[in-house]
Amino acid sequence: MEKVDPALILYCLDLFGVAVFAVSGSLAAGRKRMDVFGVIVLGLTTALGGGTLRDALLDAGPVFWVENPVYLLVAVLSSLFTFVAVRVISIPWRGLLLSDALGLAVFMAIGTAKTIAVTGSASVAMVMGVMTGVAGGMIRDILSAEVPLVLRREIYATAALCGSLAYVVMHRLEVPPAASLLLAALATVTIRIAAIRWNLSLPVFQSKDNLDRDVTEPRDSIE
Amino acid sequence: MEKVDPALILYCLDLFGVAVFAVSGSLAAGRKRMDVFGVIVLGLTTALGGGTLRDALLDAGPVFWVENPVYLLVAVLSSLFTFVAVRVISIPWRGLLLSDALGLAVFMAIGTAKTIAVTGSASVAMVMGVMTGVAGGMIRDILSAEVPLVLRREIYATAALCGSLAYVVMHRLEVPPAASLLLAALATVTIRIAAIRWNLSLPVFQSKDNLDRDVTEPRDSIE
Amino acid sequence: MEKVDPALILYCLDLFGVAVFAVSGSLAAGRKRMDVFGVIVLGLTTALGGGTLRDALLDAGPVFWVENPVYLLVAVLSSLFTFVAVRVISIPWRGLLLSDALGLAVFMAIGTAKTIAVTGSASVAMVMGVMTGVAGGMIRDILSAEVPLVLRREIYATAALCGSLAYVVMHRLEVPPAASLLLAALATVTIRIAAIRWNLSLPVFQSKDNLDRDVTEPRDSIE
Repeated sequence: MEKVDPALILYCLDLFGVAVFAVSGSLAAGRKRMDVFGVIVLGLTTALGGGTLRDALLDAGPVFWVENPVYLLVAVLSSLFTFVAVRVISIPWRGLLLSDALGLAVFMAIGTAKTIAVTGSASVAMVMGVMTGVAGGMIRDILSAEVPLVLRREIYATAALCGSLAYVVMHRLEVPPAASLLLAALATVTIRIAAIRWNLSLPVFQSKDNLDRDVTEPRDSIE
Repeated sequence: MEKVDPALILYCLDLFGVAVFAVSGSLAAGRKRMDVFGVIVLGLTTALGGGTLRDALLDAGPVFWVENPVYLLVAVLSSLFTFVAVRVISIPWRGLLLSDALGLAVFMAIGTAKTIAVTGSASVAMVMGVMTGVAGGMIRDILSAEVPLVLRREIYATAALCGSLAYVVMHRLEVPPAASLLLAALATVTIRIAAIRWNLSLPVFQSKDNLDRDVTEPRDSIE
Repeated sequence: MEKVDPALILYCLDLFGVAVFAVSGSLAAGRKRMDVFGVIVLGLTTALGGGTLRDALLDAGPVFWVENPVYLLVAVLSSLFTFVAVRVISIPWRGLLLSDALGLAVFMAIGTAKTIAVTGSASVAMVMGVMTGVAGGMIRDILSAEVPLVLRREIYATAALCGSLAYVVMHRLEVPPAASLLLAALATVTIRIAAIRWNLSLPVFQSKDNLDRDVTEPRDSIE
């Protein structure tokens, strides 16, 4: 059996993640009855938003889809496919849910690895890793004028955070990058699927005060 | 008759686009009863948002209004003018609608041309061209907490896409840049005005399933 | 008495501003019943959003918290502290309101000073200074799916604008940077607190027309 290049596997998984996230964005656009252009825009921003933000903030050259337009192509084709396919076939929610967990894990692993290579900082790498995984979905929700789901949903971004932490620790222990990427992504997928399966969630914000006001609101405050 | 420099015409059209988009942002702020500062912020972000995003993603030096603050000045003055003028004169909706089509076309043409000069990639140039034209209006709608209109409106961004495609094709055929810019912008203006005149629109997302759930939602999914 | 380094004071005030803005973001997350992760995300984006946008647009190296992760740490710890503390203690609204004015002033002063050092342009520095102060709060409100408060609130961003203008003028008059920073921040704090104390506000957008339509809306327009 021939040995397969790990970089190639990662690239394929990355494109798979782009496709899944584009489908997710397209379905959100469908919920708002957008036209075919709106569907492509939401598909593109969901699929490429996280990595775009990461590259813009790292300031290490142009963003990834400017360097390699294959990402653009995959995202556009996946959105168009969704637009057409939902008219004739049922949406495979369960398959999408598992694919989404995989996409989240791959984006997180790539974001963490790229950031630690550029900056060398573990805490920055963790923030960027989580951001690469979840920002696309957040932009999707903002464009649909909703509160981003990842901010109030059962363990989602937290799964990305655990995987990112795992990568950073393995990097310190000088585990080879390919193994670190694989194990970190596996950790995220496992936690995410466990959270779905047993309906796990994090503690929610609770306050003894009424919160229906803002810090910058002056109402009877300094008289 | 003296020959006029095409670059100068383009610069004037660009400033005209900035002014029109600033007016559009200011009117959106008015709809939300913002104060004079909110009006300026929405005017500025609508007028400069698309080009700002383009320059941040291209990573080819600081954004255009940091290089040339005249854009800032035009956007601020147009917003202030709107704030004052609407108290005494009627809003010329028809004129604004046509001006908006012109602004969209100019921003699209400049965005496409700049991106192809920096990256050489036709697909990236088309995404950036459309984004330069429509992102300002999208940011305006996000700041007003609404679903961006360009995502659910009759042919708007699609007009920009057609113009951008036209530019890219002419670039390949080695048409001189000035002529390409002019013809591409003309294509966008024509399509946009035809869409308004005959009320054209693109097909809307339709699904045989109920879409009121999200891909990341686990409800009865993998038990 | 030993002389204290002004740069050190500024750095401490900057971290103080980050902490206050993180608390403000965390409370907004609480209002939307987010979980602990959502609270940290809103705390982080509120605290670091303005400076992040500034650094991304200036294109002068990576953003500040990539260079110095202490900012990340302070923002995360402040958010976690808020998450825990509100369960047992009352929220000190008055103290937060005054702290917020101080944070706004420090962020504005640092943003203005950094921009004028990089670009040399007074108008760009004023835009960036105000943006550094207010963008974090705007992103917070967008992520909570609300119209940003700074766009419709009594004098807030305007206080930042006045301080920024003061800095720019002092820079031209060759006042030493440390004194300019201090006086500009003082101007912003004073104006902001006066606005709260006497309930000052700017004139609101008023139109003789009905504004419930958009510039890009074609309704009976060019027939």
